[in-house]
Amino acid sequence: MSLDLSTLVQKNDKRIVFLIADGIGSIQSGPNSLTELQQARTPNLDQLAAEGECGLLDPVMPGITPGSGPGHLGLFGYEPTEFIIGRGLLSALGVGFPLKDGDLAARLNFATLDKQGNVVDRRAGRIPTEENERIIAKLVAKLPKAIDGAKIVLQTEAEHRAVLVLRGKGLSQSLADTDPQATGVPPLDPKGLDAKTGTKKTVAIVKKLLSQIRKILADEPKANFVLARGFALHTELPSMAERYGLTAGAIANYPMYRGVASLVGMTLLETGNNLLENIAVAGKRWQEYDFFFIHFKYTDKTGEDGDYEAKVKRIEELDAAIPALRALKPDVVVVTGDHSTPSKLKAHSWHPVPALLWAPATIRRDGVTEFNEVACAAGGMGRLPMKYLMQMALAHADKLMKFGA
Amino acid sequence: MSLDLSTLVQKNDKRIVFLIADGIGSIQSGPNSLTELQQARTPNLDQLAAEGECGLLDPVMPGITPGSGPGHLGLFGYEPTEFIIGRGLLSALGVGFPLKDGDLAARLNFATLDKQGNVVDRRAGRIPTEENERIIAKLVAKLPKAIDGAKIVLQTEAEHRAVLVLRGKGLSQSLADTDPQATGVPPLDPKGLDAKTGTKKTVAIVKKLLSQIRKILADEPKANFVLARGFALHTELPSMAERYGLTAGAIANYPMYRGVASLVGMTLLETGNNLLENIAVAGKRWQEYDFFFIHFKYTDKTGEDGDYEAKVKRIEELDAAIPALRALKPDVVVVTGDHSTPSKLKAHSWHPVPALLWAPATIRRDGVTEFNEVACAAGGMGRLPMKYLMQMALAHADKLMKFGA
Repeated sequence: MSLDLSTLVQKNDKRIVFLIADGIGSIQSGPNSLTELQQARTPNLDQLAAEGECGLLDPVMPGITPGSGPGHLGLFGYEPTEFIIGRGLLSALGVGFPLKDGDLAARLNFATLDKQGNVVDRRAGRIPTEENERIIAKLVAKLPKAIDGAKIVLQTEAEHRAVLVLRGKGLSQSLADTDPQATGVPPLDPKGLDAKTGTKKTVAIVKKLLSQIRKILADEPKANFVLARGFALHTELPSMAERYGLTAGAIANYPMYRGVASLVGMTLLETGNNLLENIAVAGKRWQEYDFFFIHFKYTDKTGEDGDYEAKVKRIEELDAAIPALRALKPDVVVVTGDHSTPSKLKAHSWHPVPALLWAPATIRRDGVTEFNEVACAAGGMGRLPMKYLMQMALAHADKLMKFGA
Repeated sequence: MSLDLSTLVQKNDKRIVFLIADGIGSIQSGPNSLTELQQARTPNLDQLAAEGECGLLDPVMPGITPGSGPGHLGLFGYEPTEFIIGRGLLSALGVGFPLKDGDLAARLNFATLDKQGNVVDRRAGRIPTEENERIIAKLVAKLPKAIDGAKIVLQTEAEHRAVLVLRGKGLSQSLADTDPQATGVPPLDPKGLDAKTGTKKTVAIVKKLLSQIRKILADEPKANFVLARGFALHTELPSMAERYGLTAGAIANYPMYRGVASLVGMTLLETGNNLLENIAVAGKRWQEYDFFFIHFKYTDKTGEDGDYEAKVKRIEELDAAIPALRALKPDVVVVTGDHSTPSKLKAHSWHPVPALLWAPATIRRDGVTEFNEVACAAGGMGRLPMKYLMQMALAHADKLMKFGA
C-alpha cells in the first residue's frame, strides 16, 4: 500500500480517546457458556455500541496470537509485521530509560538457582520491588561501568523484573534468551543467532556480564541470578505526530504499555490508582492533547489468571467508567483491546478483538446494541485488520482530507 | 508483510482435516430460489456450524473467479497471486509425472476436426480412457524422442485429456493456448506471448510437434488432433512441512487435485470409491499424518453441469459423511470449497465461498446455526482472504506460537 496517510492529515481541536481494555476478547466458557463480555452487565458499553459502530479486529493477522507490542502497534495504526519491537526495548522504555539509537536492551528476570546451578524459581519468588531496587544498587556498585567498550545500565522494573541496556558501537540483537523456560535445568549460556562480528562481540560482553552478576549475587537467598530475554536494538519509529498530526497523551500504569506509547511519541501522563482516576487525568489534561490512550490492564490479567468471574467483574468496572469518559465530551471514542485473552485459555489468543467506534457527529449506526464478540461479528466495521482502526478514528474526528481529486 | 509463519510453528499431535467440497458455493436458483446449500437437508453440517465459526472466503480476491489451481493454493495458505501454477503443470503432477525444474507442461485435449480442419468436437466425443491410452501409445511409437533438443513426453490423463511435457534447456511458458474455445473454427497456431528467444524456440518446437501429431492421427475417426492449453514451467513451491511443520496427506481422486496437493508437498494417499471410503482412508492413516486434505469433486461437477438437483443431492452426500469424520476425533475440521460453482452459471464463479471452522477446544461460537452462504455472511470469521484459513486452523490446533513480546 503506497498511501501516505500523513499527506491527508488536517489538524483541528477534536479529541479522540482510545480506551484499551487489554486482552478483552474471549471465547465462551463459564457457568453459562458465554464469553466474559456476554456474561458481564455492561449497560454503558452497550449504549456506546448502539450509538456507534462495531466490528472484529485482527491485531496482526487472522490466526496470529499477538504479543503486547504488536497488539498495541496495531492499535496505534502501525503495521505490526513491519515495525518489530522486542521485549527488552519495551521494558526499557517502560522504566523511562532515555534510549538512543543503537542501544541494546534486554529484560532481566531475577531467578533462584540451587547449589547445582539449576533454576528452581524463574521469578525468584516474585521478590518485592524494594528488594529488586536494593539488589540493582548492589550490582551497580560492584559491576564495572563498561565491558569491552559497552556501557552497562541496569534498572529496576517491578517485582522480579529488571532491564539491562548496553550502549556501545556495533551491538547485535541476534542473541537467544538465556531463560530456559523451565525449572530443574541450568540457565542457558548466551548464544548468537548468527555468525556476524557484532553478534560474537555482543555474546562475549553478555557472557562476561552474567558471570560477574553470578558472583556478586551468590550470597542472595532468593535473587541469586538473572535470566535474560528479548534482546532488542532500539529503532526509532515515526511518531504519531508525524504520521497523524496528533498530540498524543498516554495514561497507562504498567511499564510495557508506557513503553510502546513512548515509542510512537506519546507523552506519558501521570496515572491514578484506578480507571476512574485515569479518566480524571485525561479530563485534567484535556486542553493539552487531542488524542488520549487510556490503558486498562485488568481484563488481560484476569484472563491470564484463568479467572472468569474476576474478568467479568473487571469488565463491569470498565463499563462503570464510561459515563465519566462521556462527560469529557470526546468527539471520538474507541473501546477495544490489543488482543484476546480468554480465561479458558489463560493466555493471549488469536481470536479477533471486539471493537466499538463511537463518534456521534459522523457514525453510521449498524444496529448492534450489545458490546460483545458475537454481536460485534454482525457490526458495520466487519472484520478488519486492527491497523485501520486509527485511520477510521481520525476520519470520524475530521482529521483526514479526501484522497485524490 | 514480513511475518514468516514458519518461525512461529510448533509441532504437536493435534490433527487438522480440510474437507474440501469443490465448487460448493452458489447463488440462488432452483424451484425455491435458494442456493443448493440452502435447499439441501444438512443436519450434520449445520451442527458443525453451530458448534464452530463460519464466514465467507475469497480464494483469490473479491470479484476474481479462481481456477482450481489458485483456489486450492489459497486453501493451503499460499497467496495465489504470488504462486502461479499453470494447468499443464497440474495435469502433469496429477498423472504422477516426475517433473524437474524447467520442465514445460501443457494439457492436451483430443479433439475432432472436420475435413476443412475446423474443430467439430473440442473433446473428441469424450473418448474412453482406454482409447486415449491406445492413441498415446501410437503417438509415442511414431513421434521422435526429441525435437530441437527438447525431449517429448506424452501421457494419458483420462477420457479425452492427456499431458505433454517438454524437457529441455531454456523453454518458455509464454505460449497462448491452441484451443480456440469454439467449434467451427480451426485450432489456433502456437503463438508466443512475448518476443524472447526462449519463447520463439518453444513456439517452433510446439509447431513441429503439432504438425507431426496431426499427420499421425489423420486416420483416427474421433481423436484426430489435439488442442493444447495451459503451458506452464515447473517451479518448486515451499512445502507445507517447511511452512507449517505439517505432515500432510491428500485423499483426492481426481488428477488435478492430486497434482496441486503434491505440489505443496503432501503425500498422495490411496483413495476409495466415494467420500465415506475416503474418510475411512484418513482413519486408517490417522497416526501417520497431522493434516488431511479430503477432496470431494461432485459439488463442482454437478454445478458445472448446471444440475441444481444433483448438486443438492451431492451436498446431502457430503453431509451424510460428517459423522464418520467426527468419529475420527479430529481437533480441527474445516469444511469449505476452493471456489463457488453456481449451477445457475454452470461455471466457476467469483462469489466468496462459505466456510466453517470447527475446533471444540478453542472456537468462539458465533451464533450461526446453518451452513450456507447467507448464514455464513453473519459469521465470526467475517469475509476474509482464503489464504488465512490455514493459519487459523493451525492456531486452533495450537501449532502457532505468539508473535512478538
